[in-house]
Amino acid sequence: MTSNSHPAVAQMYLDDLYVGQRFTSGSYQMEEADMVRFAAEFDPQPFHLDRRAAETSVFRGLAASGWHTAAVAMRLLVTGGLPLAEGVIGLGGEIAWPKPTYPGDVLHLESEVAAITPSRSKPDRAVVTVRGTMLNQDQEAVYILTAKLLVSRRPA
Amino acid sequence: MTSNSHPAVAQMYLDDLYVGQRFTSGSYQMEEADMVRFAAEFDPQPFHLDRRAAETSVFRGLAASGWHTAAVAMRLLVTGGLPLAEGVIGLGGEIAWPKPTYPGDVLHLESEVAAITPSRSKPDRAVVTVRGTMLNQDQEAVYILTAKLLVSRRPA
Repeated sequence: MTSNSHPAVAQMYLDDLYVGQRFTSGSYQMEEADMVRFAAEFDPQPFHLDRRAAETSVFRGLAASGWHTAAVAMRLLVTGGLPLAEGVIGLGGEIAWPKPTYPGDVLHLESEVAAITPSRSKPDRAVVTVRGTMLNQDQEAVYILTAKLLVSRRPA
Repeated sequence: MTSNSHPAVAQMYLDDLYVGQRFTSGSYQMEEADMVRFAAEFDPQPFHLDRRAAETSVFRGLAASGWHTAAVAMRLLVTGGLPLAEGVIGLGGEIAWPKPTYPGDVLHLESEVAAITPSRSKPDRAVVTVRGTMLNQDQEAVYILTAKLLVSRRPA
């Protein structure tokens, strides 16, 4: 298991990745004010904006927009959770929110390289599939991301 | 084809949905300042933050974080693009960013009900699969979302 705090792997290229390789991000605490601000801009639904309205919703309490949770996961990947030298560049993937995210939750992301598919047309690149699970402080999965990333070899 | 501006379908329940049903959202213009602000908070990579750095990147210009594009798509769904009475509640899905989003792009979302799968345990609910394509002003797809949504029947 490789940790993102390992200095030898601080900036990785395709050459450094292998299937089964794991990474653990830092952590991020969800603040109610940030949740409401994000929701007001991008997902203005009562259960993301108003505590009282949220109590009788399917979430049974104020919950973060799933897209806020997804954005926080990206922040965790980019700030050490997946130390790719040329950045985390996603082509797409699959997402799921098995549980809601609530105010005060402390989230971190555990990721694993699931597949490496070399490009046929550009031999210096590959599509790397990374499966990440974001856990809260009770080790419950709140977000699962299987992302296809564009990764390049180390420049000659 | 059903438009979200049709008053008779302003607030829809499961009873009102059918496979093949289509919706068109309003539009949203991407502003450079918003793109940089979003990226600074959630996706702080040079090609999302700095014009000059972005020019030599795979994006060939300052590009929105894919998660910003995704969040804008949610805003378009929630603000009329998918008029569900009890809200747009996603369980997960698939996403893809076939092209970058650039400053000034004017985006809108075209969606279609792809499948309706009744819940076995809760007969008043179903998982509704909606496929949405977000297009820019040149009718290029910049984001494709296939979302599994939780939708309830009209209350008795």
